[in-house]
Amino acid sequence: MARMQARRLRAAVAGATGAVGRELVGLLAARDFPAAELRLLASERSVGEPVQFGDRELPVERLETSALEDLDLLLLCAGAEVSRRWAPRAVAAGAVVVDTSAAFRLDPEVPLVVAELNPGALAALGPRHMVACPDGASLAAALALGPLSRAAGLRRVWAFACLSASQAGRAGAAELEQQTRDLFNFRPVRAERFPHQLAFNCLPRCGPFDADGSTALERGLVEETRRLLGLPRLPMGVTAVQVPVFSAHGLALHLELGRALPPDEARALLADAPGLRLVDDPAGEAYPHGLEAVGQDEVLVGRVRRDGGSEGGLALWLAVDNARRGGALNAVQVAERLASVLLSR
Amino acid sequence: MARMQARRLRAAVAGATGAVGRELVGLLAARDFPAAELRLLASERSVGEPVQFGDRELPVERLETSALEDLDLLLLCAGAEVSRRWAPRAVAAGAVVVDTSAAFRLDPEVPLVVAELNPGALAALGPRHMVACPDGASLAAALALGPLSRAAGLRRVWAFACLSASQAGRAGAAELEQQTRDLFNFRPVRAERFPHQLAFNCLPRCGPFDADGSTALERGLVEETRRLLGLPRLPMGVTAVQVPVFSAHGLALHLELGRALPPDEARALLADAPGLRLVDDPAGEAYPHGLEAVGQDEVLVGRVRRDGGSEGGLALWLAVDNARRGGALNAVQVAERLASVLLSR
Repeated sequence: MARMQARRLRAAVAGATGAVGRELVGLLAARDFPAAELRLLASERSVGEPVQFGDRELPVERLETSALEDLDLLLLCAGAEVSRRWAPRAVAAGAVVVDTSAAFRLDPEVPLVVAELNPGALAALGPRHMVACPDGASLAAALALGPLSRAAGLRRVWAFACLSASQAGRAGAAELEQQTRDLFNFRPVRAERFPHQLAFNCLPRCGPFDADGSTALERGLVEETRRLLGLPRLPMGVTAVQVPVFSAHGLALHLELGRALPPDEARALLADAPGLRLVDDPAGEAYPHGLEAVGQDEVLVGRVRRDGGSEGGLALWLAVDNARRGGALNAVQVAERLASVLLSR
Repeated sequence: MARMQARRLRAAVAGATGAVGRELVGLLAARDFPAAELRLLASERSVGEPVQFGDRELPVERLETSALEDLDLLLLCAGAEVSRRWAPRAVAAGAVVVDTSAAFRLDPEVPLVVAELNPGALAALGPRHMVACPDGASLAAALALGPLSRAAGLRRVWAFACLSASQAGRAGAAELEQQTRDLFNFRPVRAERFPHQLAFNCLPRCGPFDADGSTALERGLVEETRRLLGLPRLPMGVTAVQVPVFSAHGLALHLELGRALPPDEARALLADAPGLRLVDDPAGEAYPHGLEAVGQDEVLVGRVRRDGGSEGGLALWLAVDNARRGGALNAVQVAERLASVLLSR
């Protein structure tokens, strides 16, 4: 590591004060990322907020053109708008960009990568010098579907996603907390980040609707999963619901397969797959649930059983810490692979 | 109504202090149920708790054999165990029983009835003198699937249910409230009614698991929906999740149909169907969500759109007040129909 640091990799995190950003900075410290220099960047209003890096607090600087000078690697986690604006500038200034937002996930010139699933896609970094990371729900779905697809073929998939409030960033989680406090104190409840009260309520709506009535998250879950699995025409039916939890997504998958896959065989495949942890003992009340996934580096998978909808099909349930495992960890894992390439140049 | 009351129908509600029971007693008052006498019954520990009947409070008596004497109609909403014990005794004592629990829902000798969907099944009341009411999620699913099935045929259904805490009765809702308060006051959280913390968490578990890994609610949703629709072999894939809300279920349905049904045509069918209210203006942020369903006498249906999983298929989203619309109202509507039969004898 000392040798690598001697190569003086200069990295920056933009959006370092956000829900994904804080997790990401923490992971860079915990995993001893080979950077000689780490700049934490954010918008004007977050400058000065301290961010924990291991046992130190790092200062946050303003995201501006001068902050991108002499940079090898930029990790972007400040939302799609910031990514669209700053990713091309960082690349023009000579950096490679790892983007956690939705901005470039469906761009055919930008590889969409889950480190455990398709790291080979990094070889095709190409002229854009950017890598996109999928949404946490897509990452979880792809990690579980990958081994099952290779073993038995996927014909059709139905996915039902329960999205946590932190999907909408720190502001989303803060609104859920405030609404809950207000309800318990008989104060009026205000909804700003979400269109209706989320506290003690389920909103069948994650992101804006398109003309066909699907939401941005539902479209993304379909398109990103297809891309990650290399199955561009996989039929998928998706409903995503915003639920009043802070920190983890839940995801039901019902699969029609090319050949019947007994649950025991599927369990063995999932238990061996990287990035997943099998939690599947219903009799012992062990199954993936949100609180068990929080802070974990794996996507939890369980409730593996026959699907009543299709002969020989399967149903399963996933839980994933969307900010940490879904957002931050994958970006760090991608950055680690890029770092070893950059450092070996 | 005065004429009918002159016929002196004697009715009782067992489980009158529960989540469904209180709603039911309130509805009997509001709808001016034609009973000359209404007895409210509960277990020993709830005797004395006042229950609101219109602008009066009625006393609650102990559910015991003597309370069933000279009774025409017993509405049971105290859970499956109480129903299994007391329904046969009430029938033996001469009453007709309307049961809201799971005890007899799959009994081929007991009709399973949703008043708006299959009231004709009451004609086959038969020697058991009992009527079963479905679970709120099954009721909602059947009300929405009925008109679509008649119009286009159902080939396969995938259902994803978000169950409210009151599915587990007043104790379930009380535990969610207590857990939330404890969290906000930095007190340890205890889980008794649910196997894990439900506050700010989703548990992919509603009722005990069977050997195949499905829960009681998932099995019930399949079997009850099939019975209500008269489609005993309809393939259904179901996942049910306990979510941290108090008072309404959410339900996604993805359908493969016998013929393609454009969303507009489906919307027209659903808008005309009894027991449903179409809430479907995504651009105006109008879709069924739990808080909008609370206190309503209709199942809300919306987000009607094409399903990506099957050609020509449909996806929709339902919200239902499980205690009121799902549990109590249907039992009252069934009781009203039975009352008119009993009174015309």
